[in-house]
This record gives sequence, C-alpha cells and structure tokens, in this order.
Amino acid sequence: MKIGIIGLGLMGGSLGKTLKKLGGHEVYGYDISETTMLKADMLGAINGELNEETAKDIDMLIVSLYPSAFLSSIERFLPLLKSGAIVTDFCGIKRQTMQDMRELSKKYPHLIFIGGHPMAGREFSGIDRSVSTLFDKASMILTNVNADIFVLEQVKNFYLSLGFAEVVITSPEYHDRAIAFTSQLCHIVSNAFIKNEIASEHFGYSAGSYKDLTRVARLNPEMWAELMMMNKDNLSLELDELIGNLVKYSEALKSGDKAELKKLLSEGNERKLLIDARKK
Amino acid sequence: MKIGIIGLGLMGGSLGKTLKKLGGHEVYGYDISETTMLKADMLGAINGELNEETAKDIDMLIVSLYPSAFLSSIERFLPLLKSGAIVTDFCGIKRQTMQDMRELSKKYPHLIFIGGHPMAGREFSGIDRSVSTLFDKASMILTNVNADIFVLEQVKNFYLSLGFAEVVITSPEYHDRAIAFTSQLCHIVSNAFIKNEIASEHFGYSAGSYKDLTRVARLNPEMWAELMMMNKDNLSLELDELIGNLVKYSEALKSGDKAELKKLLSEGNERKLLIDARKK
Repeated sequence: MKIGIIGLGLMGGSLGKTLKKLGGHEVYGYDISETTMLKADMLGAINGELNEETAKDIDMLIVSLYPSAFLSSIERFLPLLKSGAIVTDFCGIKRQTMQDMRELSKKYPHLIFIGGHPMAGREFSGIDRSVSTLFDKASMILTNVNADIFVLEQVKNFYLSLGFAEVVITSPEYHDRAIAFTSQLCHIVSNAFIKNEIASEHFGYSAGSYKDLTRVARLNPEMWAELMMMNKDNLSLELDELIGNLVKYSEALKSGDKAELKKLLSEGNERKLLIDARKK
Repeated sequence: MKIGIIGLGLMGGSLGKTLKKLGGHEVYGYDISETTMLKADMLGAINGELNEETAKDIDMLIVSLYPSAFLSSIERFLPLLKSGAIVTDFCGIKRQTMQDMRELSKKYPHLIFIGGHPMAGREFSGIDRSVSTLFDKASMILTNVNADIFVLEQVKNFYLSLGFAEVVITSPEYHDRAIAFTSQLCHIVSNAFIKNEIASEHFGYSAGSYKDLTRVARLNPEMWAELMMMNKDNLSLELDELIGNLVKYSEALKSGDKAELKKLLSEGNERKLLIDARKK
C-alpha cells in the first residue's frame, strides 16, 4: 500500500520504520519540523515527502498528532486524496477526533474515515526514540465512522501485519471512558507518586514495584495535558474514585485498625485474582 | 557454611534453593507446616531439618517469617547455637525486629545479630512459588546490632554470592521510612487502583503502564497488613502526601485549568528525570 503519515514523532516515526522493515509499502511522511523530516529520511522511516504530488496516490493517510492539531493538519491533503482512500489517526482520545471525522465525512463522502488508537508508547518522545518494534504485541483500538465491514477487515489485517496482537473495534465514548482508567490515571498516579519528598533521597536500593510504578512519571507534559483535559469528565471521575479508596487505607492505618487494613488489602487482592482469571 | 533457615515460604524456600544451587553450603530448614517441610525436602531446598541436633553446628541462622513471629520462632534455637554464630532475619520492617535483636544480644552476648531485608519478592507466596533466581540483581539491606566490621564484610560477601547486586547497611529507622515509600506505598496504590469500578470490565486491551501499575495488587493480605501496621507512622505520612498531590490533579481537571495540569505534569516529569540522572 501507499501510506501517508502526518506527524513523524515517536508514533509516526515508529510506524514509518515498521512499514519500511515489513516491506511492500511506500511511505510518504510530513512533519512541520524540517529537522524531523530530514531525520525521518535519514533513518529510513519514509520513502519521501507527503506533498501535493504524492498525496494523490495514497491508499491510507494516518495522522499521528495531538488531537487539537488533527483538523488543521489534514485539510491541506483531503481534497487531493483519491476516492476510497482511508483516513485515520493515532490520537489517544477518540471523542474529539471522531466528531471532526464525522464532519469531514460529510464534506468528503468519497473518503473513508476510521479513528485509531495504538495502545503502545514509550516514556520518551520524538523520532529519535522511534523504533520498528513499538507495536509488537500491542492492542490497536478502532472507532469507525463510515467504513463498511470489508474495509474494516482490511484495516484490521493491516494493523495485525504491523505486529499488533489484537485489533478491537469500539465506540469513541467507551474508548475514552476505558482509557481514562487504563492509561491516563496510571500516568497521573506515577507522576504524582514521584513527588513525595522522600523520592529525592538516594536510597541505594529499590524494589521492582517502585520501578514499575514510577516508570511513566516521565511523560510529555504538553501532550498529556491536552489528552487528559479533553477527557476530564471521565478522568476526574476515575481519579476521585481512586482517591476515595486510598483515603480508606489511610484511615485504617491512622486508627491502627489492622483488621480493616487486612480487609481492604484482601478486597484488592481478590479483585486482581478475579480480573486476571477472566483474561485467561 | 552451615545455614539454618526458619520459615520456608517464598523467601526462605528461595534462599534454600539458591544455596543448594550455589553449592558449598549445608542447609537445614524448619517450618511450622509439615507439608512445607516435606516440599522443601522434595524440592531440594534443604539438606535436612533444623532441630536440636543440627542447630549446634549452624554458622548462620536466618529467620524468614512475619516480624510478629520472629521472637517466638527463634527462642528454641538460640541456646543451642555455637559462639560467634550469626543470627539474622528477612523481615520487611526493621525497627521491631531490631528491638527484639537488641534484647536478645544482651541475653546471648556470644551470638552476632544483624537485621536483613532482601528487596526481592514476587506477587505470589509459599514454597511452591520459590525460585533460585529470586535474589538475582536485587538489593539487600542490613541493619547491624552487634557485628564488627569483619563479620559485616563476611555477611555482605555472603549475600553478594547469592546473586544480590548490592548490600546496603543502614539504620532501622531510615530503612522503615524509605520502605514505606518505595515498597509499601506502591502496594497500597496498586491494590487500591484495581478497585475502581471499571476495572472489572473486560477491555480486550491494555497498555504497559496499566499492567505495571496493577501487578502488585496481588499480595498476601495477612503479611502486608502486619508489615504496614508496624510502620503505620511512616506509611500514613507517605500515603497522605500522595493523596494531597493527587487532589491537585483532580482540582486542575475539574476546573478545566489546562495550564495548571501541564504544570503539575511537568513538575513530576522533571523530578523523575532528575532522580534517574542521579542514579547513573
């Protein structure tokens, strides 16, 4: 296929590298930064520039930018795309871009719009950190706008060929509600955890649980602030539910109620066992 | 060396297996459960039973039990040990057992007492889950009672030979303060996180950050309730500090203050970068 990628950061760059490694695809990329464009070329992440000329033959256009940049970045290319071309995105929040896509599908009814969110990432950003293995065994989430079942199947197989372990189709509303918990809340907790005063002391030792919990304290603040703010309804509900639960442990500790603390820990333990059992 | 191990659960069992794999040691174990004793024997984690006879020749006695069981489990063996024998423990909290050891060192001045906490573990418990690789690259923390520098050096080298990457000597007070944050708080957060209502829904997808954050939600409630309650002063301070920080994110979200949210995320990000840089 001929693939266009707008935005050649960690995700877009990794996509280009993955496609080039896989072979059988032509990749045309565009990034607002000239340096990034040069790097993408040097790193072999693209075959050439996505421009007025190359856009005409593109089979699938993938926008890998912040949700707020989606609309403005894509309008230049949409009038050039051939009939039946697929337009998709990599935004971590789906309600906003789905609304944009629904509007665009009325204006460009000959194009196919599907939202996408690759559940992959690293605690780094930028094309320098992009790798051709980023999507290995990850989940890809799709939120459909106007694709028929055959196109969806095609897109699903495309992502599976990139190394994704599964492709799940869901609604933008459910996606945003789930992601508030499984991704955004994790990042807030990790980012807040490292702020405890004692974290700045050098222990000379740490356990695996600490390394795991603080891994994603490192993040791109601009991007995550935007994604979280666009999902603030879901995310603040999840965060307040977590805070409410944490307060229970604090109260049990402060009142010296060991039986209550054990009960709280048992409830979490049993819930974790139940959830893990269901996954198998 | 001739090593005695009291308590053949995940930690004690793993210690026995590690020593037997390493060779050059004789391992005598005792567990209150007959089934565990039989399993330890069958799994090759011990050479024989630690009893009135074998205790006489032990060079080092390691107690791998809950802190509350430390004193009662050990009193049977202490009068039998030879002069210069080392008595140590694997308890996750050090102030309590250090107090016990200080008392014992007055009663048995010919014995050497050193507290120990291997910063290793799994989200499972029991000898069935014990492995000879549990201590690989982990940190071992020692809190000294009455050992001289030569014995400490000997004990340090002993633990390094088991696969530990580092052996750190610190005070029981500092240990308990640090561990409240680097281990106990991680377990509470993970255990509370999984309690959000939405966690029980089957997503069909999840990100690495979610897997990492919920890994230690599974724990031994009885053991952790005891360890946490014995450290409730330190732990409740750390927990309340975290809750206070989480509330700031919640407020920024609910008031729609993107600049404030970005500032909070940037602070955590920079702190993480600073801490990681210091480790190198």
